[in-house]
Order: sequence, then C-alpha cells, then structure tokens
Amino acid sequence: MQRLLNDPDRVVDDMLEGFLRVHPTSALRAHDHARVIARATQHPGKVGLVTGGGSGHEPAFLGYLGEGMLDAVAVGEVFSSPTANAFLAAIRAADQGNGVACLFGNYAGDSMNVQMAVNMAEDERRQVKIVKARDDIASAPPQDAEKRHGIAGGVFMWKTAGALAQQGGTLEQVIALATKTAQRTRSVCVGLSPCTIPAVGKPNFTIAPGSYEFGIGHHGEAGQRVAPLGDAKDIARQMVAALWEDFGPQAEHGVFAMMVSGLGATPLMEQYLMAGHIVDELTHNGARVWRSYVGNYVTSLDMNGLCLTLLLLDDELQRTLTFPAAPLGLASL
Amino acid sequence: MQRLLNDPDRVVDDMLEGFLRVHPTSALRAHDHARVIARATQHPGKVGLVTGGGSGHEPAFLGYLGEGMLDAVAVGEVFSSPTANAFLAAIRAADQGNGVACLFGNYAGDSMNVQMAVNMAEDERRQVKIVKARDDIASAPPQDAEKRHGIAGGVFMWKTAGALAQQGGTLEQVIALATKTAQRTRSVCVGLSPCTIPAVGKPNFTIAPGSYEFGIGHHGEAGQRVAPLGDAKDIARQMVAALWEDFGPQAEHGVFAMMVSGLGATPLMEQYLMAGHIVDELTHNGARVWRSYVGNYVTSLDMNGLCLTLLLLDDELQRTLTFPAAPLGLASL
Repeated sequence: MQRLLNDPDRVVDDMLEGFLRVHPTSALRAHDHARVIARATQHPGKVGLVTGGGSGHEPAFLGYLGEGMLDAVAVGEVFSSPTANAFLAAIRAADQGNGVACLFGNYAGDSMNVQMAVNMAEDERRQVKIVKARDDIASAPPQDAEKRHGIAGGVFMWKTAGALAQQGGTLEQVIALATKTAQRTRSVCVGLSPCTIPAVGKPNFTIAPGSYEFGIGHHGEAGQRVAPLGDAKDIARQMVAALWEDFGPQAEHGVFAMMVSGLGATPLMEQYLMAGHIVDELTHNGARVWRSYVGNYVTSLDMNGLCLTLLLLDDELQRTLTFPAAPLGLASL
Repeated sequence: MQRLLNDPDRVVDDMLEGFLRVHPTSALRAHDHARVIARATQHPGKVGLVTGGGSGHEPAFLGYLGEGMLDAVAVGEVFSSPTANAFLAAIRAADQGNGVACLFGNYAGDSMNVQMAVNMAEDERRQVKIVKARDDIASAPPQDAEKRHGIAGGVFMWKTAGALAQQGGTLEQVIALATKTAQRTRSVCVGLSPCTIPAVGKPNFTIAPGSYEFGIGHHGEAGQRVAPLGDAKDIARQMVAALWEDFGPQAEHGVFAMMVSGLGATPLMEQYLMAGHIVDELTHNGARVWRSYVGNYVTSLDMNGLCLTLLLLDDELQRTLTFPAAPLGLASL
C-alpha cells in the first residue's frame, strides 16, 4: 500500500486535524463531538443544513461546508456511517433557531443513525426534517427506486437547498427544494480499478485488467455488468443511455446540469475527454446541457473511474444553482 | 493500462474538445492554431497573460484560463512542450493592445519555443516579456538555481500577475510582480508511484513498493533520494525542512501561502492529513501560514504523490492573492 499515512486506524482523525489546520477561521470542531465539523460562522434564523457519511469520499462530505452550502457535517470512519451521536451533534451545531434539514445519502447505516439522531433532537425540541439522495440508478431497478443509494448527486441537493436556506427559505421550503432536486437527479458510475481502505491495506475488490465495471457503487458495490474496456466514447454513450432510459419521457428536450466526477485516481484529462462525449451524446438526444461540472466532486479514495450525474432542471433549480457558494473543500484561488 | 481513452495518440485533441464542450461560452480555440485555447472575453487595454506546457498536468495549464487569471494557453502533447507556433498563436490571442506577459515553467523545450515565439511576435510589433517559474528546489542545487524547473508554483505567479493585469497594471508592473512571485516561491514533491503516458501504455519509471522518491519532478524526473515509505508526519517534516533550508534566513518569522497539490491519484484525505502536518511544522519553525491551498492544482496524469509549494508573502502578494479569480479548470459550484 503506497499511501501517505501515519497509523492507518487513525487516518480519519489525522485528516480532520489537517482540515481544521487548513481552514482555521472557517471551520471548527463541535464542542460535544470530535467527529463533527461545523462552519465557524452562524446566521441566526437561517435553516441549518447537515449531512454526514463515511470518510474516503473527500471533498465529500466535510468539504461542502461553507457559505451557501452546509452548516455541519458528521464524519464517519472510512466507508462507514457516522454514529447517531455524531449526527445529533451535527444537528445541534447547525441549528440556528429555525430548524435543520438533514440531507444525506440513502444507505442502511446512515438512515438508521440519522433516524435515531432525529428522535433525540426532537426530544430536545429541535425541528429536523430529512431528505435522502437516491441518485445511483445501478443500485436498484426503477421499481425499487426507494432502495437506491445516494452517490455524487447529493452535491446538487446541498447546493440548491443551501442557496435557498442562505436566502431565508423556511425549513418546509428548503426540504421541498431538496426533495425536488433529489427526485430529478440520476447518476451512474464506471469503475476501472479498485480502491484500498487504509486500515485494510489491500484493494477491497478486483477489476480484471482490460475490463471495467458499469454501474459500480461508491464503495465498490457490484455494478450491472463487467465489460471489456473499449473506447471512451462508447462508454460515455452507454452511461448517457442508461440515465436517459431511467429518466424516461420527462428527459425529452430537457435542460440539464451535468456533473462528471472523478473517483479519486482518474486524471482530469480523461474526465474532460469523457465530458465532451457526454455533452455530445446528450445534445444528440435532443437535450440541452445548461452547465457542466467536471472534477473530483465525490471520490472513493484512490478508485479509478468516473461518476456521471444529471439533474433535470427547472427555473428554480437553475436559479439556486447560480447562487454564490463557497464550499471549503473545493480547490480555489 | 486502465484508462478512459479512445485513440491514445489523440488524447490531447479529445481532451481539448471536451474542455470546449464544458466551457462553451468562456473558452474558445484560437482561429490560427488548434492547440491554443483562449478566454472568450477580452478586456481591451488589459495586459495579456499567456502560459503553455505539456498536457497531462490538468488542471494546468488550460484550466487557469479565466477572469483574473490567464488569457490564452498553448497546449503541448503529453509531457511535451507546445510548438513555437502554438506559443505565438497564444500571444496573439492574449494581446489586447498593451503587451503580453508569457509566464511559464523553466524547461528546455518550453524555453526554446517561447523564445522563438517572442521573436516572431516582435516581428509583428507585439510587446512580449517573459518570466520563468523555477520553483522545484530538487531539480538543481542552489548555486544552479537558474536551471531549476517550474512545477506547481507557477499557479501563484499566474494568480498574482493575473490580479494585477485585471486591475489595470502595465506590462512592466505585471512582469515585476510575476518575477517577485517566482523568486519567492519554492516547491518540493514526493512520488509514491509512477504515471502512465497514454501513448506509451506502461509506467514511465518505477518506484519500488515500500519506498518513495523525495524530490521527484512533475514528469518523473529522478529526485534527490529514494527512501523507505514511513510515517506521513516524517515525510511532511522533511519536505518543510528542505524548503526551509533553501529559503534561508529570509524565511524566519515569514508569512507564507502554502499549497499542497496532489499529483493525480492521491486521495484528498491524504492531502489534508499531510497539509495538517505541514502547517504544524511551519508553525513550529516560527512561520505563519496565511492561507492554505489544498487539492489537485497541478498533476502528473495518474501519479501518486504530493507537491508542497511555499510562497513567502509581502503585502502586495497577499493583496493580489486575495483578488477574485475564476479559473475555469478548478471544480466549483
């Protein structure tokens, strides 16, 4: 394992120390939980936004703290849910007097721990509502869409809800917008090589050289099929086709936000190459790409692969996507 | 080779097509050269900023096009200099009537081609001045500092010079600021695994498992030493010590901008972990870190490793680093 680590079992703590060193005036640790990071600045009366999830997906989740984005994040072990207590502490840290929206990805562990945290928060007379991202179309068939996992598409939900909260939206309005965003977001990933969890020390699954996995999950969950690794253009075509079919007729002549997220070890050169083919394919289908987002938005440690996310826009979504945001974890100048 | 490619010999062209699809209203191809990308918006009278270099370092170089940053970029083959004609076309595209600053990394091929381009541009009665980044302290000893290569540190030069140009600085002022920035910038990299040039199809060098290369270059140039891969904290300490020694007495009680750039396949988790140790080490040395920049700023395809860059600040540098910039190639929301 060629990694920049100290004790592999302490990698999350070491990362959090680093994050706080890098953002000493904009981020802080919650007073009541070591695995909760919050924005240093509060806006009394603003609806609070919380998320959380396993580590190893950086810049998700803690990197989306920031103005116009999230207020507090519960941080789990690598690829593991944060505890219920961590989610509770994040809810407390984000609560600025007008309720908290907890917007997270649909996984069994996260769902269970968030629900416990919400119950505890309600016992403290806090108002909390939740929305789950379920954008990964490969994780369950359409008839079981409620079971689908949340992957990179959560970023769009945090952005639109974050913009509305920053502009004074009520908890009900923020939840409605997050729900709409989640419902109109679909993602599919391809994996070319596995990733290595530091504390394990070897790849957590295998992909044979010369092949790739279509529909892989953010933790290496088995995809829809393993196929020979052919031209990028053909892979892009298949990714768009899968999302297009899943959207159904509503996608016809639709206007989309398109996100291509590298999974950790994918050169940006290839992300741009793929993004070009994806835009062409969408245009060929009669869709319009309103804006393209390309880069490492949600990763899986050092996995080589790509996640394509499409958000079917309307006026409100475009407006809130355009609102300024300053996520701490995206490289900026 | 597990890569998202079509014809490996056409990867640069495919990437440029993708970049233009992703930025259809902010970037365009120069009318007189297919390997030159320019900002779509001009500001008559503004000093033009140009860079260029080999591909494979994305988001460098073309990703630093944007408001408050670069105006035109010459794009080379993977790890190869752009041609003299490409640099000339970039100079033409960037020229908005008050001269052009060409700010690039010190490599033999780039230097030769830029010089030919400057000569041709002067024949067209254009005013062009150059500054070379030479931040890689491992590429030549202090007594041969003129021979040092430019690596991730070039980003700081583009940022400060770009801010001054956007605010109406003259060519002389912009060149003076770029020169000062370059002189006060030092970098050192560590490499944990090699990278694979698409058209070659296999790693361009080897690093034995369990070891790492201290002082590696952005194309795998041999570093100062190969050492056993130990604790990240110790590696961070050595990186800071090397830069500290090279800065000499001027670094004492200095205020720094600090950049940690992943080389392509390095998880952001580890970049934050390392950044934390680096900030601690600098603080221990009596320095103050004014701002930390963490992420994939300048990469080497899928190389696993890290580049640490320090810029010794003064008031003017802090002011220009704070000026708003919108580089197209950094992931944003």
